[in-house]
Order: sequence, then structure tokens, then C-alpha cells
Amino acid sequence: MRQSGERPMSGAPTGVDRRGAVTRISSFLAAAAAWLRLSVTRRPTGEHHEAPSSAPTRRLRKIATEEAFTIPEVSAAMLEVVRRGGPALDLKLWTLVYNTTPVEPTVARAPSAAGVDRDALARQFLPRLLDVEHARLAEMDASGVDVHLLSLVSPGVQMLERDTAVSLARLSNDRLSETIRRHPTRFAGLACFAPQDPAAAAKEMERAIQSLKLNGFLVNSHTNGVYLDDQRCWPILEAAEALDAPLYIHPRAPSDGMAAPFRDYRLEGSIWGYGMETGTHAVRLMLSGVLDRFPRLRIVLGHMGEALPFWLWRLDYMASPGSRAALKNSLKPSEYMQRNFSITTSGLEDPLALRYVIEKIGVERVMWAIDYPFQQTEGSVAFIESAPLSETEREQIAHRNAERIFRIAD
Amino acid sequence: MRQSGERPMSGAPTGVDRRGAVTRISSFLAAAAAWLRLSVTRRPTGEHHEAPSSAPTRRLRKIATEEAFTIPEVSAAMLEVVRRGGPALDLKLWTLVYNTTPVEPTVARAPSAAGVDRDALARQFLPRLLDVEHARLAEMDASGVDVHLLSLVSPGVQMLERDTAVSLARLSNDRLSETIRRHPTRFAGLACFAPQDPAAAAKEMERAIQSLKLNGFLVNSHTNGVYLDDQRCWPILEAAEALDAPLYIHPRAPSDGMAAPFRDYRLEGSIWGYGMETGTHAVRLMLSGVLDRFPRLRIVLGHMGEALPFWLWRLDYMASPGSRAALKNSLKPSEYMQRNFSITTSGLEDPLALRYVIEKIGVERVMWAIDYPFQQTEGSVAFIESAPLSETEREQIAHRNAERIFRIAD
Repeated sequence: MRQSGERPMSGAPTGVDRRGAVTRISSFLAAAAAWLRLSVTRRPTGEHHEAPSSAPTRRLRKIATEEAFTIPEVSAAMLEVVRRGGPALDLKLWTLVYNTTPVEPTVARAPSAAGVDRDALARQFLPRLLDVEHARLAEMDASGVDVHLLSLVSPGVQMLERDTAVSLARLSNDRLSETIRRHPTRFAGLACFAPQDPAAAAKEMERAIQSLKLNGFLVNSHTNGVYLDDQRCWPILEAAEALDAPLYIHPRAPSDGMAAPFRDYRLEGSIWGYGMETGTHAVRLMLSGVLDRFPRLRIVLGHMGEALPFWLWRLDYMASPGSRAALKNSLKPSEYMQRNFSITTSGLEDPLALRYVIEKIGVERVMWAIDYPFQQTEGSVAFIESAPLSETEREQIAHRNAERIFRIAD
Repeated sequence: MRQSGERPMSGAPTGVDRRGAVTRISSFLAAAAAWLRLSVTRRPTGEHHEAPSSAPTRRLRKIATEEAFTIPEVSAAMLEVVRRGGPALDLKLWTLVYNTTPVEPTVARAPSAAGVDRDALARQFLPRLLDVEHARLAEMDASGVDVHLLSLVSPGVQMLERDTAVSLARLSNDRLSETIRRHPTRFAGLACFAPQDPAAAAKEMERAIQSLKLNGFLVNSHTNGVYLDDQRCWPILEAAEALDAPLYIHPRAPSDGMAAPFRDYRLEGSIWGYGMETGTHAVRLMLSGVLDRFPRLRIVLGHMGEALPFWLWRLDYMASPGSRAALKNSLKPSEYMQRNFSITTSGLEDPLALRYVIEKIGVERVMWAIDYPFQQTEGSVAFIESAPLSETEREQIAHRNAERIFRIAD
């Protein structure tokens, strides 16, 4: 599912200068307001998940870009990790997910977000992760989702012993590629790898792109507390750059060295800790100088960029190149954002936040995602179909950017 | 500098419902665009820090709400902490600030942000922190800043031995109140206290409001790794609520238990770690249930709310009341935000982020701040004078909200 001729990841410069920002915000507001008047008029019933009722419209093609799956062998290995226990905060969720009586896929459909019991919901994740070609495809059909860009569920193979991780990464990528071959118009895939063995990881990354024709990679933040700016991980970054394939940095719970304040109130997960962990990882990449060593590295962040777009002014102000001995960056964080990063909307279905990130980093680097099965398909589809966007923006976010960035055939 | 008759902290409900959000964004965009067309017309020269050139305008009253100072006795005690050393990440900055040859106040004026050497800048902080009534007042006059709401510089007395902390908190509050008495129209003040001794802290908080007539309190996030949701800290929250005085939760570096990934690239400070530490603190307050125990507690967060407004949709989605056994909140995070929180603009002078937070949590809970001496007065003044706001919004953010929330005489 790869295609050639990707356009470069270019975009409008980030408006740091205040005069520019005023002018830019003014024109964005005027355009958005004009479009919205049109939009609201066009949708008199106001049902946010129904198609516009007047004017001929095409169905919106939708590529969901952060969609999890697993395979029985990885699931079995993770069950061993869960049984062994330990301090890792990821175990709080995965103990619920893996270490329970299986739930029948037929009853695994999640209730609506209102009044949901999230602990009970977690016990329904495993069948939904294991089933790629049946209930999932039916749910995609029912909601009008064209493609899931699949990735091995967090924490991937990253909590397994090194050799197990290396071999299960290969197996998982093989299975993923077979699934895609059976449904080439419905699935694309991001390869996993074992950062525990960077040389083997680089080799597997090459195989995943060149032989398996996968669409990029996904890593679940740190591995045993090591972040990708660590020199030991450079072969991984080098491979991703050489293969010109995007590297999605997906959350996992905060590493042991930052875990303490996240141990209460289930703060370690999607509620809060995932964003702190993964955002910190991204900032480490920016300030360590590795993006100068690998300037063509293409990184994808979920969850509206893990709040980096919100912090960008402060990051630029405090981390201008050469402003501190410990800082190794040659560009401003906003310049790396423009050159090296794209983001997805997973788990943050907020029209106001979406408008903010479009204006801050450019619509051409924003992609839609569901975060299946952790987020509800219906809500995510309603979000992308009803968010206040121009039709061009909507198509870019729903599928065109994903086609370009992940080389998914349109 | 307190006045009675504060209005309740009410505000428009957060737009979680999508239809409501679309309508709300549409009207906000239209109003903002209309205002901006006016604004751009009114400022033909485009100099962002000059007053509007046409139409009769009043000078904008400006109350800066996160402005640091210190006293020689606290400075001496912190120098001892710095000399003793240890793992605390705060020491990275304070070693530069406290443990160096004094710099003359006359040369302590910071250069502009462009090309700044932040390590050198840190060595100029101490004289600027110690001088409240001379160079600072002159700088306030030169930039048209009416009031500094003063607070003892981070980490306050929170890294000192318990008894020293208790007595230096009293001394610092006494000095602060004397300074305000000498310049009652130019300074207001937030009291410090020693969370190391919660009973003494509660007593000092009462004295600070009832005898010293200070305007609230400021705490620098954790104390020895303990956060305010800890039951040992409840006397502090109880006192703040009973005194109906706001508690500003100011950053310090991440606590030892979350420090590891922040040890490189000076990531622990204003660049990134401050926000992760303080945002996590605020989320702990929301999810621990202490805001149900102290429902009238009034909290202030700096730095555009430490990104909580950006994460609010996800926080609501993942932490709806009763959705998990470990969650103790009876309200949604956005409901606590509306009931218990205000924010300031310190250190994030981004017009787009400002517009976002206004729309997300309501203009009535946003206040201007400089973050003196860590941020440059000129830039912060230019920001509040030129940001795309209606004149009503500008006055609310520049002074009216601070007058109401901190009971500062207008």
C-alpha cells in the first residue's frame, strides 16, 4: 500500500511574530466564520453525525491512522509480563486487559461514553484487538470508515525480553502484512520493532518497508526508560530516515523514572500520563539535536500533537538555538515542528483544539484517527464529519494527508 | 489591598457537546473577525507595542499577577541549599541564580529574547529579585505597568528545613506587607507558607489575610514530593477555602519521583518540566476528590493553565465521574475548571493560545502576567496591548479579573 511521489512536508511558517500573528488570526477567523455560516445553514437539523442535507455532497473518505490490533502470540507474551508484575505503570491497564476471563467478541461492543465504566470497558479490549477482519470490518462498514492504519497495540513488544521482542516483532509484522494483502483497500499498517536491540530493529524496519511494503513504523515511547534521542537508538532513527518512512511515537505509561506522581487515580494512562510521557519524548528529540543529525526524519504524534502545539510559543522562547549550554538544537522547536512532525486527532475530538492546531502548525500536517478500540468509532466519525472545517480541510484531515504522509493509495 | 464584594467565579459552561461547540465557535469566530477588521484598521503603522493611533483611547490599566521577588534571608538560606547539593532538579537553575558573584543591578537589565544567553541571564535574576522598590518600579513606570502582584520566588521556602521554612515564610510575608504599605497603589501580594508544617501553614495563611491584608497565596507545586491532594495537606486547602483567598499553584522543577527524563537538556525548567509538574499537580487535585471536599477552593494556574485547557476534552472523556474505581472526582474536569480555577498568561504570549483559552474556559477566568524577572516586561506588555481582543476582553484580562479574583482595589 505504498505509492511513490510523496510531496515534501512543507508548510506555512509558524506565526511567532506578533504582527504576523494578528494578521494571520484575523484572516483565519474571517474565513472560518464565513465558512461556518455556510455550514450551519447547510445543516438545518443540526444532527452532527448526519451528512449535509442540501447541496450534492460526496461521501467523505476516511483513513483512521492510529488503530490498534494484536496477535495471540504477543498477547500470550504480555500475559506473562502481567503475571510477573513489577513497577511499570503500563501494568495497571494491561492487567485489566490481559489477565481476565475472555469476553465474547459478540458482547465486546463498547457502550457510549456517557456513564461508561472504563474498568469494565478495558476487559473488552482484548477480543476487539485480536479481531481484525470480522467485527472490526463490520464496524468500519457501519460507520463509513474506509481504512484502518493498523499498529500493534501499546506497549508493542517493548516490555518483552530482547530476543522474544525481536522475534515477535517479525511475526507481528508478517501477520500485519498478510492481513493487508487480504484487504488491500481496507487496511494499511505501521511496523513494530524491538528498540531493545537497535541493530535488529533497523534490520526489521528495512524488511518491513522493502519486503512487506508497510507504511511506516510505530514505537510506544520509551523502552526500559530509554528515549530515542539516546545514542544507542540512533540506528533506529537512521533507518527511518533512510527508508523515508514515518515513525509514529505512540504513548505508553510514564517511564519508571517519572512514574511517582502518576501512581494515584489511574493518572498514568490516557487521562493524563500518556500525554506527559509522549510529549516529553518529543521535546527530548527536539532539544537533543538528533533532528539535526537526522534532518529528514518524519515523526507523527497522536492526541493533537501531545499538546506541543499549545506549548510552542514557550518552547521557542525558552529554547532558541544556542540559548543554553545544555541545549543541542540548531533550530527552534516550531521549525522542527514544521519540518519533522505531523500529528493526528486521536483521543481529542475537540473542534476548538482542532482549529487551534490547524492554525498553529498547518492543516497539511493534521490527520484523523480513532484510536480503536480505546476510543469509540461513532464519536470519532461524527467529529471529523461535523467539525467546523472547509471541505478542503476536511478532506485533507480525513484522508489526503494520510495518503501523502503514509503513502496510502487513494 | 483587599476589597469586599467579589463576584462568584461563574462562567459559561464548557462546550463539550458538539452541536453547541459548532455554534459557539461560529459566533466566536464571527465576532472576533469583525473586531479584528476594526482593530487592524485602527493600527495602520502596525507597531505592536504602540497605542492605537486613531480614536480616543484610555491607557490600559495593567496588573501583572505572577511577579517574583525575594528577600536576603531567604536568598541566604537557598544559597545553603544550593551548596549542599542533591538530586532536586530545581538546583540546576538555582545554582546559577544563587551561587555566583553578585551582579550590579545597573547591569541587570536583560537583553531582548532574540539571541539571549539564558545561562548568563539567570545570573542576573538575583539582583532583580531582591530589588522591589527601585529598578523594578522604574521599569514598571517605563512600560506602563500599574501593579505587580508579588510572590516569593520559586521554590519559596519549600526546599528549606521545616522550622526554617516556617519562620522565613513569616518574615517574607511581613516584608511583603511592608513593601505594599509603602506603595499601596503599585504592589499587591501573595503570601507564602511552609507546606512542610501544614498546621503552621494554615496559621500563617490566616495571619497573611486577616492581619497583613495580603491578596492570596502562592505555593510552588510539590513539597518534598508531596502534592496538595495528600491528606496531610488538607489543613492548607481548608484554610484557603475558609479565608476565600485564591491559591496560585506556581511551577517548580519536577519532583524527584518524576525527574529522570527531565535531567537532560535543561528540560526541567520553564522550557518544559515546569508545565508537566504543575499540570500534573492540578490534575491530581481534580481527580483526587479534594475539590469535592473543598468545593469553594479557588486555584490559579499560570502559563495559560499549564495546558489543561488544551487537554480538557480528553480529561472529560477519560475521567467522567464514576468511570473508574480509582477516580474520586464527582464532577468532570471541565466543571472543576469552571468552578475552581482561573489562569494567567505568564510565559505564553501567544495570541492564538490566548484566543483558545478564552473560548475554552471563558474570558472572566484569564489574567495577564509577566513572570518578572524571568520574562521580559516589554514583550509581555506588547502582548496584552496588541493581542486580538475586544476592548472589554482586554480590560478584563489586563486588570478587571485580577481586581475581582485577588481583591485588588481598582
